[in-house]
Amino acid sequence: MPKTKLRVEQNLTNKRKKLTTADYAEGIQSGDRTILGRAISLVESNAAAHQAEAQELLTRLLPQTGKSIRIGITGVPGAGKSTLIETLGLYLIEQGHRVAVLAVDPTSSLTGGSILGDKTRMAELSQRPESFIRPSPSGGALGGVARKTRESLLVCEAAGYDVILVETVGVGQNEIAVRAMVDFFLLLQITGAGDDLQGIKKGILEIADAIFINKADGENQARAEAAGKELAMALHYLAPTTKDWQQQVATCSALTGNGIKALWQTILDFKQIGRQNGCFEERRRQQARDWMHAIIDEHLRTAFIKKATKHGLLKEMEAAVMAGEIPATKAAERLMEMYEQRLKS
Amino acid sequence: MPKTKLRVEQNLTNKRKKLTTADYAEGIQSGDRTILGRAISLVESNAAAHQAEAQELLTRLLPQTGKSIRIGITGVPGAGKSTLIETLGLYLIEQGHRVAVLAVDPTSSLTGGSILGDKTRMAELSQRPESFIRPSPSGGALGGVARKTRESLLVCEAAGYDVILVETVGVGQNEIAVRAMVDFFLLLQITGAGDDLQGIKKGILEIADAIFINKADGENQARAEAAGKELAMALHYLAPTTKDWQQQVATCSALTGNGIKALWQTILDFKQIGRQNGCFEERRRQQARDWMHAIIDEHLRTAFIKKATKHGLLKEMEAAVMAGEIPATKAAERLMEMYEQRLKS
Repeated sequence: MPKTKLRVEQNLTNKRKKLTTADYAEGIQSGDRTILGRAISLVESNAAAHQAEAQELLTRLLPQTGKSIRIGITGVPGAGKSTLIETLGLYLIEQGHRVAVLAVDPTSSLTGGSILGDKTRMAELSQRPESFIRPSPSGGALGGVARKTRESLLVCEAAGYDVILVETVGVGQNEIAVRAMVDFFLLLQITGAGDDLQGIKKGILEIADAIFINKADGENQARAEAAGKELAMALHYLAPTTKDWQQQVATCSALTGNGIKALWQTILDFKQIGRQNGCFEERRRQQARDWMHAIIDEHLRTAFIKKATKHGLLKEMEAAVMAGEIPATKAAERLMEMYEQRLKS
Repeated sequence: MPKTKLRVEQNLTNKRKKLTTADYAEGIQSGDRTILGRAISLVESNAAAHQAEAQELLTRLLPQTGKSIRIGITGVPGAGKSTLIETLGLYLIEQGHRVAVLAVDPTSSLTGGSILGDKTRMAELSQRPESFIRPSPSGGALGGVARKTRESLLVCEAAGYDVILVETVGVGQNEIAVRAMVDFFLLLQITGAGDDLQGIKKGILEIADAIFINKADGENQARAEAAGKELAMALHYLAPTTKDWQQQVATCSALTGNGIKALWQTILDFKQIGRQNGCFEERRRQQARDWMHAIIDEHLRTAFIKKATKHGLLKEMEAAVMAGEIPATKAAERLMEMYEQRLKS
């Protein structure tokens, strides 16, 4: 039994009272933060009984979801993501918003703690009653972590948070997973040693709706602005991520707060255009459908891999195909024949 | 029964003599172009009996494959792909090479003919005994067309063609399919009305090993060169497609032949670097393995969709998920339960 499962189950059973789905729903909608936290633990649990309960709860909450703006934020470690979230979050609370911060980082359990586990990272924001900060769920593969964050996002919406920030780090396929659950995707960038922005991860520019160059303060400001101009030229060559939306490049300083208001205005403009041309709602509908299909594909594939791995045939076929001993189509056929026989027996 | 299938079966039965796999293999290796053409028709056939025969033939040919350089070429209609292939092909024949030209274009059947069907497009090249030109196979979905072209490529290699050009057009996922079967991927580009290269399709720059700006002749030369310089700057921001290989940008004129020798030299340099660092062989091994898995995934998905569509449950669940009436996870679960029950019954 994986470690996570044990811990989560303990959390749930240690609580004073067993909650029904109705209790959860009521607590969440009345703003009870303890119950909100427990509901998210339920969603994050890998235990089959909890998963069934979580789905019942989500079904009940769905009519209350969808009213937030969902914002994905990525950037390399050191780009200043947590400072930005702190500054932006406090600004938004000032404007009357309620802000939830979630994370997708499947590597966090490997490094011994979540990227958001340390609340000192967002010291002031985490103290505010208008904010809710939740570390990246543990639990292995990206698919599992992304599912949990996606469902936690719905729970936070039902709890009345109207701005959801989903943070991730620039490793592997994380950004693709986050892009698939948010409305707006921000790349936070910093200038490198050599006045420029080299080292932007492959594929990221093409899924970002805006690139903000952080740490544009003091001596660094001129460099950040020059890099921004150069990047804006390069973006010229990329088709926009979102219909009718020209990707924005700007500078900001999460430290001084410069550019934070402009960032929020960019997001509001984006939302307005998307509402007008219908893209905003359509993307959400597509995301929900794609998500369902992604879960199905994962199920199908996992079931296949499990059976194909058991008797070593998969490894054997892979090796033969890679060595050029058997055509890929024939290898696939043999594996499928074996799989279908196993299913019947 | 689909139209294609009928036609191909007829082709095969009309021939004077039924060939055994050994006949095919022998004919291909002795340079018999008629038998090569028939073998590719066999590979392209959708009939189950032909497919089994084709796999037997491929298994037999595999030891003779892999000795060519596989080059993918894409570009919008009007970029001059056929003129480039004609000029490059004739140049390569001059250098002692044998050149096969294949195509991936699932849309060609819709427009009433293959993009390569009209041999007047490559009038001189198509007359040369050192070349072999094959139109895009018909047969519906991209997956099917890509499989056929990939297997035809192997047959051409066994026939001793040492340069394989795979042409495609910039529509949908075609380029991704071609990138997955070639060693080197070329984007052929032209300057737009406004001196620049806007309108490069999303994702293409990131999979191209070289971008050649065609029609750099006459009045257009200066414009093409300026655009090339600007593009080279933009590429700065993208990670290379192939390890240790900086994407190349250059100009050429398929009409005058300027830059064609340089293009071939670029491909030779690419191959040499890839052989030295092992990437060349490693990519082919990965491509073969990925291809096997892609076929398996397609099988799994097709079987699922077939059952799920039958009773309308898939459409129902999709609609409910898109309308926010049921969580994606729960919808996926219901569909999987239904599917597993059907499999058992």
